[in-house]
Amino acid sequence: MTYCAAVHVEQGLVFVSDSRTNAGVDQLSTYSKMFRFGVPRHSALVLLTAGNLATTQAVVKSLTKDIDEAAQLNLTSVSSIDEAAAYVGTRSVHQQRKHADTTAGSSVDISASYILGGQIGSEEPAIYLIYPEGNYIAATDRTPYQQIGEVKYGKPILDRIISTSTSLEEAALCALVSMDSTMRSNATVGPPIELLAYERDTLELHEPMRLEADDPYLLELRSAWERELRRGFAALPRPAIRPSVNPGGDAQIRVLSERREK
Amino acid sequence: MTYCAAVHVEQGLVFVSDSRTNAGVDQLSTYSKMFRFGVPRHSALVLLTAGNLATTQAVVKSLTKDIDEAAQLNLTSVSSIDEAAAYVGTRSVHQQRKHADTTAGSSVDISASYILGGQIGSEEPAIYLIYPEGNYIAATDRTPYQQIGEVKYGKPILDRIISTSTSLEEAALCALVSMDSTMRSNATVGPPIELLAYERDTLELHEPMRLEADDPYLLELRSAWERELRRGFAALPRPAIRPSVNPGGDAQIRVLSERREK
Repeated sequence: MTYCAAVHVEQGLVFVSDSRTNAGVDQLSTYSKMFRFGVPRHSALVLLTAGNLATTQAVVKSLTKDIDEAAQLNLTSVSSIDEAAAYVGTRSVHQQRKHADTTAGSSVDISASYILGGQIGSEEPAIYLIYPEGNYIAATDRTPYQQIGEVKYGKPILDRIISTSTSLEEAALCALVSMDSTMRSNATVGPPIELLAYERDTLELHEPMRLEADDPYLLELRSAWERELRRGFAALPRPAIRPSVNPGGDAQIRVLSERREK
Repeated sequence: MTYCAAVHVEQGLVFVSDSRTNAGVDQLSTYSKMFRFGVPRHSALVLLTAGNLATTQAVVKSLTKDIDEAAQLNLTSVSSIDEAAAYVGTRSVHQQRKHADTTAGSSVDISASYILGGQIGSEEPAIYLIYPEGNYIAATDRTPYQQIGEVKYGKPILDRIISTSTSLEEAALCALVSMDSTMRSNATVGPPIELLAYERDTLELHEPMRLEADDPYLLELRSAWERELRRGFAALPRPAIRPSVNPGGDAQIRVLSERREK
């Protein structure tokens, strides 16, 4: 599996992805799931991929080919993230249809989903979630993040920390904590972790920060978060777990089953 | 959906369950998913249910009927939790098979899963996860908890806090925090929350603590955890999100796509 997330705050965008792929537990490999496209000072686009690796690789190849061949529609010619998302969605559906006949009877799932985010010219930055069906949705002020892959483990921390006024640095930190929680609870999500922060209106993409499993910062972050969670947990008000024992607890056989309805 | 969890620590067992059921978003109702069985000073069993409500209700009804009719095999006659789990599994499979023909063509999922835990006589306390297929697994020292339903949101906090030496009170608190994280991130899990702590070797079951949505303790716990998480998060080391911009960032058209393999 995969876990990728993108966060949209006022100061910019943050992208994080793991690099583990698996086709059965004995076929773990490492592939980057973060791809960058753009024309410096004009556009900056980041694509995160989840799902069938054959599908996502073919899609990324076709996106790159369109740029190399200067196709009329390509990721450097689009005028909005919305147009770019529609284009990636079309390419993904096309790729899935190609193999639909041969995989129809099998249990192979060739579907894929994507997060596409960035900024083009003077447009507002945006992040889109592109579904296997090719349709897509944008992050909003109320839901300023998108996730694909193993999304549930890392959702609570995003829900609690992220708002649009969160700083870019804090958003990046929260994305890393979300990734770390996911890695800890799910063995199919694994390092290296790639993290990329895009500063609004710069129209320049940094190299992603690349954190291997033994990266000193990642290890420090993990142990600090563990320590803080335990400290915070220890400060919580305790529940009163010992209310009165059931009345009439004598030796006769008694069924304590019950069901309440409301 | 549902979220139920049970934790096994040296001091005893903790059970927590939500009470929301839904068949479509406009059919939310409240049903307890926690059922208690036993003979005081001889046995104490707690059953948590997830999945199709028609199935779980019928199964609980049959378990109760077997006790009422003093069937040879019932939850007060079993001599071990293992035997009890096998019995509940058989009843559940039987119930699902009854409706297998009529639901085969439809999208209705009649499967159900269970957590059964407790203590019988001088046996060690135990918690079992019973699958829809009727087979079951026990919690162990390395994995001292079981979950059913929407299990992913609330898993990271259990992974980080629970060990067998955790106190019963802390285990109950952790189960509540796990439930709260799940409720916050998933609308199909909702109050009232039922929480039951079983003290090892007492062979007595308390009334479950029942926390409505506006329960003062639940509200206090939620805001305290939110505050502690934010405080802990603020104390974490920040990532260096602004490494050097890509070299050669001039105005010429440049594709920044890349893919790394290892």
